[in-house]
Amino acid sequence: MTELITSVETFDVRFPTSRERDGSDAMNPFPDYSAAYVVLRTSAGAEGYGLVFTVGRGTEVQVAGVRALAALVVGRPVDELIADPGALSRRLVGDSQLRWLGPEKGVVHMAAGGIVNAVWDLAARRAGKPLWQLLSEMTPEQLVAQVDFRYLRDALTEPEALELLRGALPGRTGRAARLAEEGYPAYTTTPGWLGYDDEKLDRLCREAVGDGYHLIKLKVGASLEDDVRRLGIARRAVGPDVRVAVDANQIWGVGQAIAWMDRLREFDPYWIEEPTSPDDILGHAAVRRAVAPIRVATGEHVHNAVMFKQLLQQGAVDVVQIDACRVGGVNENIAILLLAAKFGVPVCPHAGGVGLCELVQHLAMFDYVAVSGSTAERAIEYVDHLHEHFVDPVRIHHGRYLAPTAPGMSGQLRPASVAAFRYPDGPEWAGPAAAEQVAATA
Amino acid sequence: MTELITSVETFDVRFPTSRERDGSDAMNPFPDYSAAYVVLRTSAGAEGYGLVFTVGRGTEVQVAGVRALAALVVGRPVDELIADPGALSRRLVGDSQLRWLGPEKGVVHMAAGGIVNAVWDLAARRAGKPLWQLLSEMTPEQLVAQVDFRYLRDALTEPEALELLRGALPGRTGRAARLAEEGYPAYTTTPGWLGYDDEKLDRLCREAVGDGYHLIKLKVGASLEDDVRRLGIARRAVGPDVRVAVDANQIWGVGQAIAWMDRLREFDPYWIEEPTSPDDILGHAAVRRAVAPIRVATGEHVHNAVMFKQLLQQGAVDVVQIDACRVGGVNENIAILLLAAKFGVPVCPHAGGVGLCELVQHLAMFDYVAVSGSTAERAIEYVDHLHEHFVDPVRIHHGRYLAPTAPGMSGQLRPASVAAFRYPDGPEWAGPAAAEQVAATA
Repeated sequence: MTELITSVETFDVRFPTSRERDGSDAMNPFPDYSAAYVVLRTSAGAEGYGLVFTVGRGTEVQVAGVRALAALVVGRPVDELIADPGALSRRLVGDSQLRWLGPEKGVVHMAAGGIVNAVWDLAARRAGKPLWQLLSEMTPEQLVAQVDFRYLRDALTEPEALELLRGALPGRTGRAARLAEEGYPAYTTTPGWLGYDDEKLDRLCREAVGDGYHLIKLKVGASLEDDVRRLGIARRAVGPDVRVAVDANQIWGVGQAIAWMDRLREFDPYWIEEPTSPDDILGHAAVRRAVAPIRVATGEHVHNAVMFKQLLQQGAVDVVQIDACRVGGVNENIAILLLAAKFGVPVCPHAGGVGLCELVQHLAMFDYVAVSGSTAERAIEYVDHLHEHFVDPVRIHHGRYLAPTAPGMSGQLRPASVAAFRYPDGPEWAGPAAAEQVAATA
Repeated sequence: MTELITSVETFDVRFPTSRERDGSDAMNPFPDYSAAYVVLRTSAGAEGYGLVFTVGRGTEVQVAGVRALAALVVGRPVDELIADPGALSRRLVGDSQLRWLGPEKGVVHMAAGGIVNAVWDLAARRAGKPLWQLLSEMTPEQLVAQVDFRYLRDALTEPEALELLRGALPGRTGRAARLAEEGYPAYTTTPGWLGYDDEKLDRLCREAVGDGYHLIKLKVGASLEDDVRRLGIARRAVGPDVRVAVDANQIWGVGQAIAWMDRLREFDPYWIEEPTSPDDILGHAAVRRAVAPIRVATGEHVHNAVMFKQLLQQGAVDVVQIDACRVGGVNENIAILLLAAKFGVPVCPHAGGVGLCELVQHLAMFDYVAVSGSTAERAIEYVDHLHEHFVDPVRIHHGRYLAPTAPGMSGQLRPASVAAFRYPDGPEWAGPAAAEQVAATA
């Protein structure tokens, strides 16, 4: 009998991270790292896991988004989906009624990404390979077929993408072996949350250097005086040779970003991340011209490949920060990796939150093996939160992500964690402390 | 006692328009015009009405989005909201957890818009004035205070906005009187839906001219051969002096848009609307350079003021098509009207669907009286669908919108219509014909 997708279950799972102000930044002082967690089941008893990362309130809206798209997957033959995830991706993103709610942005687009990623997880499990390896073993033709080029051809055509992927074929085996041996560079944001005091900042910066990181990141943008003091502490703690990136989380307008970075220049910041609205392509280009040689980075809120295309066409970014859950899933991230490679801009994925490290490491490793062929000027963000809730958590060693070896995309949550942190009915949320917290962050 | 907002009710209301293929275009062959309908109630028994327009499936996601934001309004004093809708708008758009789902785009942003518009409706009802008049009587200082300039100052500063609004002060009274007398120009999309046959197209084009329209619009982009034939029919039907705009609803890439419009050039199209992805600012600029003197129009899917800012900065559009429900409500549309005026680009609002004509006419009329001061090269889209469901429907006379006189923003649905078309439990959806239709459009 043909194996079919029999259900798409979606769970509202929230972790009360705001209690410790983990993850606090200029725009998001009290995040509760959360997810619309997606579980695909098949008639043969197989499962695929995906998630859409959120930060607390509104996770129920994201769950509703996933449920609205689930009907387009349930009842489909698994072989059909796995043979052509590109077609699935186009069907989910292109649904003629649901696309009105985007199009290709926000809740419905992230919902499509959550389901697409769950199908890729299922495909990788069935193949018995971690996703990065499954992708890295696909032919250039198969990879190009994953991408919807409709709005991209003025920057990247199918023949150009093929040529690029074929150019990386010869080194694939060697790079895969090196990846398995050495892992992939990481950088850490653990020291730099805005809600941490100076002592904690200093201590965590020193620990990061001791742990082997060559790049750390600090949140900035709430107070210039505080930023000057905190960046001074960080620079003294890490010394002149470790890179210190800063992240404003969209708090500034264009002129303000330029003025503020001028004051922070003395601390030799490596990049300024999200200096302004993630939609402001021309604004990022203006900031980049003004703050050079400080690099400009963005991407965690860049909602689709059309936006990344323009950031690259306009010379607006030095660093492309893909996110596993913001866009329409693996397929759209393949498009973004190809665009970045075409323009010669390094990709340093956004991660942290809950599950973002687990998922996005596969995309960066695939980029290294089969697309850009390089780890130079590249690193995956790492934050040491919430990994204990995953069945196959990331493994960090001496400032590097070790390559996953378990089949899949690493997004499966432990069943006990889902049960404990389900919102609003899980025991972690049903008690009085939880009610107090919801009130405090509202 | 202080009057408070006591509830925000949200209804999923869907009209089965796909049965007649009303509203059919290249990207959306079977729309069911729908809305997440918003009803604010106060402790004194007053009400305010807003809606977020949708096209069928997914309306329940939009309803969830409105419900997530409702908690930020319920319990607030009405006087506080009405005195400073700008603060309300910033609070809804800037909620530190919910903004992750956008930011400022898609479901959560449209939800904010639906609530903000309902508050403006309440404010206008309380003032006993139609919204266009309430806005047109505000001082330049009050209007500027409605706008969040954070991401806009590189294109438009507060002093520039003030100067612009002050410049329009002298003519306000005269223009308001003229508007009350003559109404505001309309154009019609009624003839041009892709699902209509040639005979119906020809007949409706001739009727449009007879009804006094100087501009009609046809959907294009599904088949070049069909477009050539249909545009020929339309041009012959309306003669050389009536303008014929065409609308591709995002179906093309940049190169394809340019090539396709080259073939349609012989029919003298007035503008090409949505030639490609609404996110592609650089793409629209490239299309505009290539197709001139054919104009480029976009906006119904342009998700916020930052995107409109860039379309204007980049010289990517000749026509700005604001939509009452896409962005964060009246406040963000004031920002967009100010940007368009600064760049000297006419605003021709998107309408149709359900309720869009009713709502957006107020913004265009306010633009005429107090911002741009002109109706030259301007017209509000008109489609003759579903107006019978509104308590204060638009009135069209000889190709012009008559200025509303009833207090509010005209978005109140008739209670009987809400009851009949509620999804999935209203009698229009509970029957077997409805089930058949849901299957056909999926």
